[in-house]
Parts: sequence; C-alpha cells; structure tokens
Amino acid sequence: MPNGSTRTGAKARILTGPRGTFAYMFTLGDTRCSGYGGTESQLAHFPNEETRARFEEFGSVWGLRGKRRYRLATRVGRRTSGRFRQFGLNDRPTTIGDHPPTRGMETRMNKSRSGRYFEDYRIGETIEHATPRTVTDGERALYRALYPARHAVHSSDTFARNCGLKRSPIDDLTVFHVVFGKTVPDVSLNAVANLGYAEGRWILPVWPGDTLRSVSEVIGLRENSSGKSGIVWVRTTGLNERNERVLEYVRWVMVRKRDPGRPAPPTVVPALQKAVSADQIVVPEGLDFRRYDFGAAGERHRWRDYQPGETIDHIDGVTIEEAEHMMATRLWQNTARVHFDATARPDGRRLVYGGHVISLARALSHNGLANAQMIAALNSGTHVNPCFAGDTLRAWSEVIEKTETTAPGVGAVRLRLVATRGAPFVLRDADGKFLPEVLLDLDYWALMPM
Amino acid sequence: MPNGSTRTGAKARILTGPRGTFAYMFTLGDTRCSGYGGTESQLAHFPNEETRARFEEFGSVWGLRGKRRYRLATRVGRRTSGRFRQFGLNDRPTTIGDHPPTRGMETRMNKSRSGRYFEDYRIGETIEHATPRTVTDGERALYRALYPARHAVHSSDTFARNCGLKRSPIDDLTVFHVVFGKTVPDVSLNAVANLGYAEGRWILPVWPGDTLRSVSEVIGLRENSSGKSGIVWVRTTGLNERNERVLEYVRWVMVRKRDPGRPAPPTVVPALQKAVSADQIVVPEGLDFRRYDFGAAGERHRWRDYQPGETIDHIDGVTIEEAEHMMATRLWQNTARVHFDATARPDGRRLVYGGHVISLARALSHNGLANAQMIAALNSGTHVNPCFAGDTLRAWSEVIEKTETTAPGVGAVRLRLVATRGAPFVLRDADGKFLPEVLLDLDYWALMPM
Amino acid sequence: MPNGSTRTGAKARILTGPRGTFAYMFTLGDTRCSGYGGTESQLAHFPNEETRARFEEFGSVWGLRGKRRYRLATRVGRRTSGRFRQFGLNDRPTTIGDHPPTRGMETRMNKSRSGRYFEDYRIGETIEHATPRTVTDGERALYRALYPARHAVHSSDTFARNCGLKRSPIDDLTVFHVVFGKTVPDVSLNAVANLGYAEGRWILPVWPGDTLRSVSEVIGLRENSSGKSGIVWVRTTGLNERNERVLEYVRWVMVRKRDPGRPAPPTVVPALQKAVSADQIVVPEGLDFRRYDFGAAGERHRWRDYQPGETIDHIDGVTIEEAEHMMATRLWQNTARVHFDATARPDGRRLVYGGHVISLARALSHNGLANAQMIAALNSGTHVNPCFAGDTLRAWSEVIEKTETTAPGVGAVRLRLVATRGAPFVLRDADGKFLPEVLLDLDYWALMPM
Repeated sequence: MPNGSTRTGAKARILTGPRGTFAYMFTLGDTRCSGYGGTESQLAHFPNEETRARFEEFGSVWGLRGKRRYRLATRVGRRTSGRFRQFGLNDRPTTIGDHPPTRGMETRMNKSRSGRYFEDYRIGETIEHATPRTVTDGERALYRALYPARHAVHSSDTFARNCGLKRSPIDDLTVFHVVFGKTVPDVSLNAVANLGYAEGRWILPVWPGDTLRSVSEVIGLRENSSGKSGIVWVRTTGLNERNERVLEYVRWVMVRKRDPGRPAPPTVVPALQKAVSADQIVVPEGLDFRRYDFGAAGERHRWRDYQPGETIDHIDGVTIEEAEHMMATRLWQNTARVHFDATARPDGRRLVYGGHVISLARALSHNGLANAQMIAALNSGTHVNPCFAGDTLRAWSEVIEKTETTAPGVGAVRLRLVATRGAPFVLRDADGKFLPEVLLDLDYWALMPM
Repeated sequence: MPNGSTRTGAKARILTGPRGTFAYMFTLGDTRCSGYGGTESQLAHFPNEETRARFEEFGSVWGLRGKRRYRLATRVGRRTSGRFRQFGLNDRPTTIGDHPPTRGMETRMNKSRSGRYFEDYRIGETIEHATPRTVTDGERALYRALYPARHAVHSSDTFARNCGLKRSPIDDLTVFHVVFGKTVPDVSLNAVANLGYAEGRWILPVWPGDTLRSVSEVIGLRENSSGKSGIVWVRTTGLNERNERVLEYVRWVMVRKRDPGRPAPPTVVPALQKAVSADQIVVPEGLDFRRYDFGAAGERHRWRDYQPGETIDHIDGVTIEEAEHMMATRLWQNTARVHFDATARPDGRRLVYGGHVISLARALSHNGLANAQMIAALNSGTHVNPCFAGDTLRAWSEVIEKTETTAPGVGAVRLRLVATRGAPFVLRDADGKFLPEVLLDLDYWALMPM
Repeated sequence: MPNGSTRTGAKARILTGPRGTFAYMFTLGDTRCSGYGGTESQLAHFPNEETRARFEEFGSVWGLRGKRRYRLATRVGRRTSGRFRQFGLNDRPTTIGDHPPTRGMETRMNKSRSGRYFEDYRIGETIEHATPRTVTDGERALYRALYPARHAVHSSDTFARNCGLKRSPIDDLTVFHVVFGKTVPDVSLNAVANLGYAEGRWILPVWPGDTLRSVSEVIGLRENSSGKSGIVWVRTTGLNERNERVLEYVRWVMVRKRDPGRPAPPTVVPALQKAVSADQIVVPEGLDFRRYDFGAAGERHRWRDYQPGETIDHIDGVTIEEAEHMMATRLWQNTARVHFDATARPDGRRLVYGGHVISLARALSHNGLANAQMIAALNSGTHVNPCFAGDTLRAWSEVIEKTETTAPGVGAVRLRLVATRGAPFVLRDADGKFLPEVLLDLDYWALMPM
C-alpha cells in the first residue's frame, strides 16, 4: 500500500483499483478525507450513474508524486456545502462528514468548465453563447468534403444568381450546425439526450464573410420524476454581425442534476407548434425560381410532380469514418466529449453528432430531391438511435404536404427525411417503437421550383 | 413462415434468407408474383453477376409492415416489358410469366436515379451534366490537406505572379476532378471499368471564384461480344461561368446493359491520338518562366537537365486512409457508390477513386520533378489495379519526350507517371501484363522552365 | 537462384531475402559488386541502425526486368569516396573494395532528394527554403476542422475588430506550422529527433491572402560522441510577401551523418535564452483589449485572476485518427515520411507530427484559458514521447509568470502547456524522467485581457 502526499502536505494512503482507479485516505486538519479517484476517462468506465454524477459535482483534479506514480483525483465541491463522500471500490457512496473546503484545496479550483446542470437554468433566462464565428468559402468547401452535398444553389454562384440571390449562400445546415455548436457548452454538455427540435426557421441567408453568434432563451423546465435529471427547453437564435436574426429554433434536452437533492423548479412546458405553418415560412428576399435551370440542378421533377404520401429511396449509402464525423463536429465548434473522446463512454465508442447524420441524410436526398434546394423550416426531429463509425447510412423521404409561397415560381414541400442503417420505408415496429436501424426522423420544409 | 402485405393489399408469403435477403410470393390480380429481395447492400453480397444485373433492371424498393419486420424489396421494371423473374435463394433465375406493371406498383416508381445503361447512349448525343460548382480558396486549401501538393505555381500567389499569372490558379487536377465528377451520374454510375483517357488538354487557368460545369458528347459506342455490356466513349468539356472551355478530354468506360436482349447500336470507335502533339499544347496566356525562382520552387534541375529515358524515383510513400479518399472524392462531387459504401462490393471494401491515385502520385512526383509546374495535357492513362485504404502508395516517373513552346522560357516535358504499392521502375511482367502492385500508368505533358 | 541484368548489361545473381529484400552480385569492368537491396520501406524493417545508415549514403534505386520480378536496389555513393560495402543477409557489412562510380551508375543518379546530413551544414550558412505558400480562409476553416480551436480572435472578424485588429488573423499556430513545414526538407528529413525550441516570437499577424516563406540560418553544430550524428541549431524566420518578418524561432535537431568517418566540424553551441523576456514580447500593432467582450470569448477569468503556480486541467480529451494527423501535417507541407508512410518505421506505425500535438493541446486549453487569446512567444518545448493514432490526448496548464505590456488592456501570461495520454498535473517520475504518458511540455507566452 503505497503512500503519497497532497499539495497541502497531508499524507495519503492510496489503494489502486482496476483501470487505473484508486481509493485514497488522508487527513486535513481534524477531518478524515477519503475518496475514490482517477482521471475523467477512468471514472467514465464506472457503470453506476449516480456515482459518476457525484464526481461531477466536484471541480478539481490533482496529482501527487510519491515513490511510484499514483494520481490523486479527489474533487472539491464548488458551490456545494463542502460535504465529502466516500466512494469505495465497491462503488457504494458513504457520507463521511461535512467540512469546509480547505485553502489548499481552494487554490486547486479549476478554471475549466464542465457545463451547466439542470438546476442552473431559470425560466426566461437569456444565455449569450461564446465564440462568434466568421464563416467563409473555407467552410463551404469543407461541407462538400464532409457531405455528398450537391444542391445547386449552395454549390454554384452562377446558379444562385440565376435564382435571384447575390451569390451562393452558406449551406443552410452549416448555419444550423454553427449556431447549434455554440450552444453546446451552455446547454448540452451534461445532457443525457437531445430530445427534439421544433419551430425552426431559416430567416436570412448567410453569406461568406458573415460572422455568426448564438443566443438562447430558456423557455421550459420540467424535472423528471426520478429527481436526477430534467428537461430544458431553449429557443436559440442565430444572429449575424449586423445583429439580424438568420435562424431560430427550439430544442429540448434532458440534463442531469448536479444535486438530486435540490428542489425542483416550477414546471413550465412550452406550447410548441407541431409544424411551422405555411404562412410562417420565410423565403429569402429576391428568390425567384421562374428561370430555374432544371438541367443544372440535376432533376426534372418539380414541385407539381411530388405528391403527399409519395416516398423516395435515395439509394446511395455512406459508410461513416471516425475522422470524418469528428472533423465535421469540430468544425462546428461543438465540444461534447462523447463525439471526440473514445474513453468518454463505457463502450469505448465515439458517438456521431446527430447533426452529422442530418447533413449526411439531407445530402443523400439529392438523388430524388435535387430540386428541394433550400431548407426553410425544421418542424421536428428525433435522433432515434445512436450512430457510430462503421455504420453505412442511407436515407429515404416521404412527402408530407405542399404549399405555395408568395415568391415567384417558389413552392414549398414538407418532407420527412429518415436516415437508416437498414432498408428504406420502414420506421417503426408493430408496437410503434422505432426500429433499431433507424437513426433519424426529421420533418422539414424545403423550397422547390414550381 | 411469416406473412406480410403489399401496398396494394395483396397478402405475401416471405421466406428469410442469409444476410437479410428473402424470397417472397404474392398474387396481383390473377398473376402470381414471386421474387427475391433485400436492400441494395444485401443484394450486393450475392456473387452471381447476372443475378445482380437483373435486379438492377428494376427501379423501386418498398417495405411492408407485418407483425414482424420484414422488408419487401421487389423491383418493378420501368421501361421493360414488365416481365418478372423469380430468383430463388439458390440464386437460379426462372421466368415465371409476363404481366404489365400494376398501378399500385407504378406509384412506387422512385424519383431517384441509378444511372444510365449502355443502351441509353446515342452517337452524337450531348449530355449537359448537373451541378455547376464554384471553386475557391477553400478547395485549394483542401487539396493541400488531401495531397502532399507542393508545386509552387499552385501554392503561392507571389510565385505565380512572378511567372506572369495574375495569381495562383486552382490546381490543375482539381479542375480535372471537378469536371470529371459531374460526369459520373451520367456516364459511369453503372460502369464496370474506367478504361482510358485521351486527348486531354488544359485550355484556360481556373481562378478562385470561377464556376465550373461539364458537357459531354458521346463519340463512340461498341457493344461487347458478350452482349451484356458495351464501351462508351465521351469527349468531356469543362466550362467556366463565361462559357469558356477550361479543359477537355476523352474517356471511355465499360457500361452494363440494362437488357442484354436489346440489339446493339452501330459500332463507332473514334480515332484518338496516341498523345497530344507538341503543337496542340496550350500554354496559359502570359506564362513566362524567364525570371523563374528555382530556389522557391525547390529544385535546381530544369527542362534541359531531363533526358528522354531518364527515370526518377519519387521515394516518398503515403499510406491511404478511408476518410481521406472519401473526403477527396466527395469534394469533387463524384457519386460512384463503390467509393463510399462499404456494402457496395462483395468484398466489403471501398474502392479508392482512380483520380485520388492520380493526385497522390502527381503530388509525390514533386520530389524530383518540382519544376514540372503545370499539367498541360493528358495523353493517356490506365488505372491498372484497384487501390484500397491501407495501401502505401509510391510513385516514379519516366521522361518520354521534350518539346519547346512559344512561351518565354517555358518548355514541355512528356512524362510517364506510375503509382505503385511496390518498387519503382517495374511495370509489367515477362508476359507484358501489368504487375499486381502497379496502380496507375499515366502519360502527360507538363510545363517546365527551360 | 534467378538472374537479372543491370542497365549497363552486367549479369547479376540475385538471392531473395525476407520481406522482399535481396542480395545481389554483379561485375562492372573488373570490379565485383555485391550488395543488399530492397525498397526504402523494405530496408526500413532492418533493425541494425548502422546498416540502414550505410544504405542512406547511397542515392539511387533502380529496377531490372528479368524473367521474374526482382528489383535491384543498389545505391551509388554520391559525394563519397566511391567505396562499396557488402551487406549480407545476415546484416554484417563488409568492405569489398574501392572503385569510382561507373558511368552506367552515374546516369541513374536520381533527381529526387533524400535530405541533408549532419556534415552538409556550415555555421553561418543561410538556407532559403522552398515552396512559398499563400494562406487563406481555406486554411482557417481547416484549422477548425482539425483542432477544437475556439479562441475568439482567430474565430471571428467582429471579435478581432473589437480588439483593434483589421480582421481575424490567421491562427498563430498555422503560421508556425507553415513556416516550420518548409524547413523540413532541408533540416529534419534525416533527423533522429527534434530536440527543442527557443526564442520563438510572433512578430506580425498574418492575414488571409498573405504568402509565407521561410529562411533558416545555421547557428550551432555539435557532433555527438558516437560520431554517427550531430546536433544542428537553426534560427528560422518566416516572412510574408512584403519580406516582413512574421515569426522567428530557434530549433535544434539531431541529424544523422552520412559518413561516420568524416571529421567533425568545430563545435558551436549557441547561447539561447531560457525564455523570451517580457520586453521582447511583440504585441500586434493596434491590439487593444479595453473593450474586450468576455462573454463572446467564453471565459470570465482575466489576466489578474491567474496566479503563478496555478494549474488548470483542460478536462476534454481527443482520440487521434490517422486521417486527421496526416491531413494536418500535409496541410503544412511537412514532408517527413514517418508521418505518412506506415512502412517507414519498423513498428509499422505512423508518428504523429509533434506540431499536431501542440495544436491539439493549445486548442483544448481553451477550456480554462479561453482568454489566452494569442501566442506571443515560444520559450521552449519538448516532444517528450511519440504520439500515435489511437491515443486520447488531454492537456493541462500551469501559470509560470505574468507581465504587463505597453498595449492598452493587454497583459501577458507565461504558461506551461502539457499534453498527456494520462492524468493531469503529473510530468516526471521520482528520478526526474518524463512519465511515459506525457507527450509535450511547452512553455509559451500568451496575450490576455487585463
């Protein structure tokens, strides 16, 4: 049983456990401290949700240099009462006493952030997300390297000009991902699941050189019956450097509580539209499909040729690589560790960002929906099952409804877009549950020449 | 033996087979329909070429929701006689009768496209390919991330200006790949093999911000003796947004027939030059190598130092990754599924796009041919063996001939560029067959300071 | 025992060995030549350092076409005495006689280059490195795809303008990598190890559209006691297209000798500063942090909140993929084969470029040091252990010292940045040796709002 010493000089006894974890015991003043430690990744392998949640309450990790290399990774409560809990190697937490954080520990307070918890949100609160981002032709080129994107308005300045735009705008899903990515550190770093989207609207085109930032308003809160987590609804707005709104959408996520013992906030569940209605769709100023070049777009079928109920198999498949989904997700400055860190999940797999699946499926839908040029609205969306590198993703669509718009030659089609690892046109089993091979069920409006 | 029902309400009996395939049987009116189904990828695993070809004649896939999850993937002939064939699980096709496509099936006609077949081409026909593409500094940067490209004219605006150009043009092979990529949906989606190139000429530099599109003329057709496929020759032209030709080349591919029973078109084999002659080489307007900076280019050897017959081992090797070749191929909007879909080939491997091998080899050739700055012409090229991720690619060159040009200080060198997984300077075995480790044998003209 | 013939017609006897290697014997005039051959990669698998070094003395590889495929890969001494050595398959070199290079061999001199050796450097020599490079928004976007970079000055034009800059400059480490990459063919192609950095200073911001080139001066030389290698110190300067210095730094590498028998040059060891002193730090002209937007930057802690001795765990981890580190390293036009060629090292692994580790760690440090906006100086740096794909990299920092600057609102923080595969805050074992999981120990100055 090796020994070590803490920064404050206390002698510690250390027991090594499996996977690099360890238990420790030391005395600070007249308080006996003991705990259970390891790096984030080592702790991530522990199956007990509650134990892991406890550790996330703490805010600091430090090492100590004994005769051998043992790390001491006890964490000190930041905004908590200073209570310490003992986590034995058998994973059963036991409270061993209350004491205030010591000075030695306080100086170890880490300036890095591990995200908000359910009890950190307040109804009506506005969160200005960090890291404004200038998007350029570089992002446009990368979008084509990462996704088989071929919709002509976003591919060609000449095609876009022929449709009344000043040049080819930044891909609509690039705008979504960039705006979304900024919200991750404040909204979904401690999310258990990304539950849904609603009321998404693309309001203004984004041009190369524009700088995007994101602001979210907390519009709903509901604690889960377990008391261990809750659902947070936010309405996020993407703004350009002129403070014009370019995109807005609602999403809701299940977020862990830091302290299950904290009382629940009053429940507020926002009333959300099932779908963006036809009159709420914004058509980019100047858009005119009367001289639309169907040959250049690659598809002769137009708005009038698609009928509600019709389904389209987009045929092509893409096998996903780790490097690709990580580069994409990183490009959007999305920092959720499960996408990048193979040690973050107990199964050692990196989760593919759900937005990567959206972009892949949307790009694949070009084969059969090449004229569904621009996404105008996001009605709803569910990331049905997790997606991993090695999956071969395919897509199919169903026409839900159609509407005209006030712009010349421009119609709108409401589409269901499904990404799947399996066969097309199947979504749920006999019990109404999504099939395990289905990855995404998305409902959106696209603009199409009439 | 589970049951299901089709969209038209017919009851179907379904037998499940290996790898998710199945056989089905149902009755439409007084016609008994039976078949053999699965997704594209499941069918891809069947070894019998003919069986797979038959399935590709059909155009639609649909699902049905029974008590359990079975998919029905029968396909309805589009422009065929409506004949149905039965494919038993033992893979032996049997005709079971003729009947017209039913209405229920017709509404399932898919708007997605699976490419042209040999009998879809007519001599003299002009195909305007879809998806114009604006190329920018984004594509330039990605070219350097994907290939070890170091030729100075394409790397540096200052170097290019010193050579009489207004700035650094888009990489010549980027132009080739973008123009080529557009032709894939119309020319090579059902290609068995990409057989060759000829009469390729780079006519105008492409600048960041230019928008490229492609047009092909069918200049040759010859059915193979088997009657199952034929060779299609196309002359493809790349045009910029001012409708100026920037690139042209001939390529020929072996394309499957949809219906082996269809009569062959008259055979037309175009007369092609073995190589672009010296007087046909186009030197970019203004190019002037008299003040060429050999130090900045990284090579002291100039046009006069290279002699026909001389060979150069470019030494360096690059081990290919799936993510890299897919990102590159996608960037060129090349949609051939064998490059992206691990289930598309019976061996479960993704084929590296031949153009990726060309770009890798050309970039590696910088070490020894750093002054072969710009590609002026593509005389011929053969993708000798398939290339896969994991291969370590090397390159060597042989000087074939040299010529002067009318531009000041600019000479042209005709080079053989060979990409190989093995040793340099070996190409064929004693019987004249390409060695299995050789991947590419390319013949091109490059511009070099004299 | 098959036979072959060389280009000059001499008959050769060839013995095949393991891994595609072979021994050969032939007669040129009255001199019997024998040797041991294979491709670079085949030779790379031989464990005996000295044997491999001998082969690297030679400069050419050629093939011969016999009845079967055997390659002859003898190499001819370029600037050596013309001595030949025999390398038996048992790996014991034996001198078999002296003779001048023959004409037949001389014409096989390869124009490709395999880099400089220790004896090729002279004190005071200036090396103008090849391949000027225009950097654009394309490189900026790729930097964000390859690294989780979120520092706001480099992410947003609006943020940068608010800090007094004309727009967002190119990432400081992009500048470092581009300048460094150009030096590789001249400095480190035959390096055994990259030993250190000193006196690095970012002197001028680089803007999209600028063209960078590199020049190095040899400022130190010291042969190792073994006589087989030596240390080369170079001071490298990065220049823009107006010949303004944008970056300078010293690095030293251990480089193999071509000929261990050559006498050592006089030893010159430059006197280097342990760290760039506060008054040598250059703050970009116009930089003004008085109106700094802490919310947009993503961090409320400012210069006054960080104290020397304080450590920060940056928490997040990134698992490295082959495709990612290769794309990054290639983007910087770094040509060192160990990064790209899986056959270059005996263990078949590709070494991650040390600069990739620097960029990953620096990007991860955003979580806790988001306001350490711009790197001003590189004091020292050690690539402690090799990094490979599959490693999950984490980072932690320690505040070393702080200083004010003359720019309004701008302070400087000197930071230790450590990249590790393991736990934070541990660096060395009890004997003072770096722990095996530590990858990088970097010491730099960053500019931070006060």
